[in-house]
Amino acid sequence: MINDPEVTAEILALHEEYEEALVGNNVEKLTAFFWDSSHALRFGVVESLYGSAEIEAFRKARSAVNLEREIFNLRIVTFGTAQAIVTLEFKRVANGTPRHGRQSQVWVKFPEGWKIVNAHVSFTAMSYMESAAALIGLQIPPELADGVQQNIARSAQIAAPLLGIALSEQTESAGVFQP
Amino acid sequence: MINDPEVTAEILALHEEYEEALVGNNVEKLTAFFWDSSHALRFGVVESLYGSAEIEAFRKARSAVNLEREIFNLRIVTFGTAQAIVTLEFKRVANGTPRHGRQSQVWVKFPEGWKIVNAHVSFTAMSYMESAAALIGLQIPPELADGVQQNIARSAQIAAPLLGIALSEQTESAGVFQP
Repeated sequence: MINDPEVTAEILALHEEYEEALVGNNVEKLTAFFWDSSHALRFGVVESLYGSAEIEAFRKARSAVNLEREIFNLRIVTFGTAQAIVTLEFKRVANGTPRHGRQSQVWVKFPEGWKIVNAHVSFTAMSYMESAAALIGLQIPPELADGVQQNIARSAQIAAPLLGIALSEQTESAGVFQP
Repeated sequence: MINDPEVTAEILALHEEYEEALVGNNVEKLTAFFWDSSHALRFGVVESLYGSAEIEAFRKARSAVNLEREIFNLRIVTFGTAQAIVTLEFKRVANGTPRHGRQSQVWVKFPEGWKIVNAHVSFTAMSYMESAAALIGLQIPPELADGVQQNIARSAQIAAPLLGIALSEQTESAGVFQP
């Protein structure tokens, strides 16, 4: 049975508990939510964690600041009484840059209760233009974005042959021009 | 039962079929692999697709060039006989830039066979330094990366107040300096 209301309600409550633990950086609780197995897996924004030991080590090392995020498009899909998928989109400020991200979790019910067996969290890919503009807080009007993209591509083409010239440590700089 | 060998072999064969269809951009086959439901979901590198109709429309519109990718760390975890998770990491050139990515798929066995009910594909987040260097094919030695990051952060701080000055369309440029 897809989306049994009771199972869905159970998972929604767990999701809310998880979210609270995440934003509060409650490492013990976060670790307990995950399946204690070498087969547990978590793909994060940059980290690929294989097994519960790697997941726990990551949680313990993670900075507790700026974990707040705004969630939208939360979806729960359940299959039978022991299998559920939770997905959501979020907005979060990372390294000073506002980012859009997505999160997927697979929950399985074991004799000891529901556990996250797999998680994948990612930031939506940004182009060079988007990340450069975000770095300096520059708003590029949508109607100019294509032109900016083209200029960046051309600048990169112009720079490529210059950057392609290998300079050794012994290369001397040019003499100063004397008229 | 976790990782029943027969179920795992079945999923491995399906994964290989899927990968072939993906690289060959076999839209019909790719669409058939996904669960035909409004609850099917696919988070791509930039796109968030809700329901099989959106997934199919994305496949049809996608450019068929440069879909080749190198796969590593393929993992299959199965639960019972009707539930499996396939995860992998990959390297792919996107917009001329070599990227590292991850893919997660949840497979469920229905009366009509195994279907992907959920997929999440992402590029590993790159810092501004990484994406700028990749754009011009610049190799930054790992031991210099911290210094480069600091210089970029300082340049962004220096640029910020200048960029913060609002210029109206009527602002005239300064007169040319005449000694």
